[in-house]
Amino acid sequence: MIEERITVERKVLSENDRLAAEIRRRLTERGIVSLNLVSSPGSGKTSLLEKTLGALNSKLKIALIAGDVQTENDADRLLQAGGKIVRPIITGGACHLDARMVTKALEQIDLEEVEILFIENVGNLVCPSSYDLGEDMKVVTMSTTEGDDKPLKYPAMFRRSSALIINKTDLLGHSDFDLERAKENARSINPDLELFETSCRTGEGLETWYEWLIRLVRDRKARDAE
Amino acid sequence: MIEERITVERKVLSENDRLAAEIRRRLTERGIVSLNLVSSPGSGKTSLLEKTLGALNSKLKIALIAGDVQTENDADRLLQAGGKIVRPIITGGACHLDARMVTKALEQIDLEEVEILFIENVGNLVCPSSYDLGEDMKVVTMSTTEGDDKPLKYPAMFRRSSALIINKTDLLGHSDFDLERAKENARSINPDLELFETSCRTGEGLETWYEWLIRLVRDRKARDAE
Repeated sequence: MIEERITVERKVLSENDRLAAEIRRRLTERGIVSLNLVSSPGSGKTSLLEKTLGALNSKLKIALIAGDVQTENDADRLLQAGGKIVRPIITGGACHLDARMVTKALEQIDLEEVEILFIENVGNLVCPSSYDLGEDMKVVTMSTTEGDDKPLKYPAMFRRSSALIINKTDLLGHSDFDLERAKENARSINPDLELFETSCRTGEGLETWYEWLIRLVRDRKARDAE
Repeated sequence: MIEERITVERKVLSENDRLAAEIRRRLTERGIVSLNLVSSPGSGKTSLLEKTLGALNSKLKIALIAGDVQTENDADRLLQAGGKIVRPIITGGACHLDARMVTKALEQIDLEEVEILFIENVGNLVCPSSYDLGEDMKVVTMSTTEGDDKPLKYPAMFRRSSALIINKTDLLGHSDFDLERAKENARSINPDLELFETSCRTGEGLETWYEWLIRLVRDRKARDAE
C-alpha cells in the first residue's frame, strides 16, 4: 500500500516537474522574474503583497496569482489594492498549488505585460515545498508571532527558499519570539537565505524589500540584454 | 493520472479509517477522552498544552502524543512542563499525523494510566482535516495574529472540529483581527463549535478551558458507569 502510494506520488511529482519546466521556460524567455510566496496561514503574505502593489505598481509591471483553498478573498484584496493583473486559483481543498493550476492561470495572463510575477501559495509550511511551480525562487514568510523555531520544525521549506521575510516585527516584544534566534535557526538550515525584516503595519523594512524586487527585475533585464 | 491518484488516496484513507476505528474502540472501552489538536504552525498549541499540564497534571491522568515534521521540540517542551506520558511522532516530512503513526505511539503508552489523551497534530490547517486519528473530537486553535477570515479560507478544518480556541487574545488590538468577526465566520461554517478565548501569556480564559476538559472526563466516567 505504501509502495503503491509512493509510486503514484512519484508520478504526480514528475508530471508536475515537467509542467513546471515548461512554465519556467515560458517565463524565462520573456524575462519575467517569478516568486513563489509560501508561509503558514496568517503570516501576512497578502498584506505584504498589498503594500508591495501600492509601492511598486507605477514602477514595475506586476502580475499576481493568488492561491486559496476555498475563497477568492486574497485575490479580491489584491485587486482592491490596485493589482492590474490578478488571477485567483481555488484549490478546492488541496493543500498546495501545483504546476497544472499555474499553467491554467497563466493562460489568462498576457505575459507581454508582465515584468514580475508573484504566486501566492496556499498557507501551509509543508506541502508547497514539494511542488515546483516553475518559479525563479521561493520566498518564505514567517511572522514574529509564530515561534522562532519554525525553521527547525519545517526545514524543507526554509531549505528550498531563497529569501525569508520575518514579518510583523511591530509585534516583537509581545511574545517570546527571539529575532536573533529565529535568524540563526533559519541560517542553520539555509545559510544562503536573503533575509528581510518587515512590518506591514508600521512600514518598517518594506523599503529594503521593494528595492530588492526592483533590483531583481533590473538585473534580469540587464542579463537578458547581454 | 488524476484518477489513479484519487484511487490510491481513497485506499489510503480507507486503510486509515480502519486503523482509526480500531484506535477509537480501544480508547473508548477504557473510558479515555481523546482530543486531536489541529492548527496553523505557531498558533500556540504547545504553549496551551504546557499550561494545561501545569494546571491539570494533579487532577487528571494525562497522556500526550506530539507530532512534528522534523524535530522533537514539542515533545521536549511537554516533558519539561511536567508531562508524565509524552510520546513524540516525527512524520519525516509528512504534513499530518495518520492513524498508523498514532497506533504505534499508543503501543508505548499504558492506557490504564490515562484518562485524557491529547494528540498534537502537525501545524497545518489543510491536510490533518482528512485523517481520522480515532479521536473523540478535533479541537482547532487559531491565534489572533492569523487573520479573522481563516475559518472561511480553511472551512474543512473548522467544520470537522468540535471546539475552537481563539488564542493570543493578549495581542488583540495590535492587528486588524476582529474577534467578533472571527467568531461569526467560525459559526457560519460550524454553528456547533464550542468556543474558547485564551491567552497563554496572561492566563485569560484558560480556566474555562480547563473546566471544560475536567467536565469531559467526568461526563465520560459517569456515562461509562451507567
